[in-house]
Amino acid sequence: MEGHGYSGHRDDYLKRLRRIEGQVRGLQRMVDEDKYCIDILTQISAVNRALESVALKLLEEHIGHCVAGAVLEGPEAAEAKVKEASEAIARLVRS
Amino acid sequence: MEGHGYSGHRDDYLKRLRRIEGQVRGLQRMVDEDKYCIDILTQISAVNRALESVALKLLEEHIGHCVAGAVLEGPEAAEAKVKEASEAIARLVRS
Amino acid sequence: MEGHGYSGHRDDYLKRLRRIEGQVRGLQRMVDEDKYCIDILTQISAVNRALESVALKLLEEHIGHCVAGAVLEGPEAAEAKVKEASEAIARLVRS
Amino acid sequence: MEGHGYSGHRDDYLKRLRRIEGQVRGLQRMVDEDKYCIDILTQISAVNRALESVALKLLEEHIGHCVAGAVLEGPEAAEAKVKEASEAIARLVRS
Repeated sequence: MEGHGYSGHRDDYLKRLRRIEGQVRGLQRMVDEDKYCIDILTQISAVNRALESVALKLLEEHIGHCVAGAVLEGPEAAEAKVKEASEAIARLVRS
Repeated sequence: MEGHGYSGHRDDYLKRLRRIEGQVRGLQRMVDEDKYCIDILTQISAVNRALESVALKLLEEHIGHCVAGAVLEGPEAAEAKVKEASEAIARLVRS
Repeated sequence: MEGHGYSGHRDDYLKRLRRIEGQVRGLQRMVDEDKYCIDILTQISAVNRALESVALKLLEEHIGHCVAGAVLEGPEAAEAKVKEASEAIARLVRS
Repeated sequence: MEGHGYSGHRDDYLKRLRRIEGQVRGLQRMVDEDKYCIDILTQISAVNRALESVALKLLEEHIGHCVAGAVLEGPEAAEAKVKEASEAIARLVRS
């Protein structure tokens, strides 16, 4: 299978990641301006959720493209890809 | 595809879930004996992690069996199963 | 300070923990009856959230009682209790 | 109580947030260069953990400074600050 599940719409991912980059710079401004801790914490949770959404979308497309491609290839390729995807899911659940 | 990814070794899952049941009863004893809050919180985190391990194993077997089976069936079945699995992953990440 | 933040209403915690124990037994039944993986995963996320709610309530009462008590005792006692509570929060965030 | 718990060492927070900003730009490069999904997912988990560390440190200092200050002020101020901090912890646990 050519490319990755997300290859066809990288712009969407880039747009979302640039927004997240802007949010992180916003956190820097809040610290610089000595904003109230709770407001900064609220914003950090928002950035975390935005990152998780990107990861969950990427994961869905990876399973639907790369893992599915390995399944069509054969059991051995499928097993390796499923294990790899499961390890990525575990890291996401525990981060 | 017959049964589910986990069907072949339900005993292992039952054993782990019974252990978790015992841990939850242990939490009840700690509360009953007025144990220190932090010790109870530490035990709750341990039960959470044990539950997550069961979920991650179940997910891996679901992707390798049910989702893979749908992929072999065809694109439409695959897309539905991938979407369903991704929603389960999102619930796990956000719980 | 006598007892812990939760000491005054242990029954509420015991009731919630017994319900969670019942949910974990429900998971065992689902596995025993070879239920669909996604349904079991959905139920595991629900048990996780129920456990987290117990932990968050316990934490709030610990901060309001034990940590606050240490603050009134003096800086040294306060610092130790704050550090201990923060480590419990970190375990919860990462479980 | 003057300022916030973190006010005395904002540089440390700024340095960590700038590093996170750089990591998010790194994610953009990975997408741009069509890197493998799993590698991007691994990096997202790393950024999540870095953000969580900032949040956990900020929380510890908030409890030790702002919440402690409210405790010394009196029960009413303490209760409000404890509730506010607990809600921030819940958002962090669930993000």
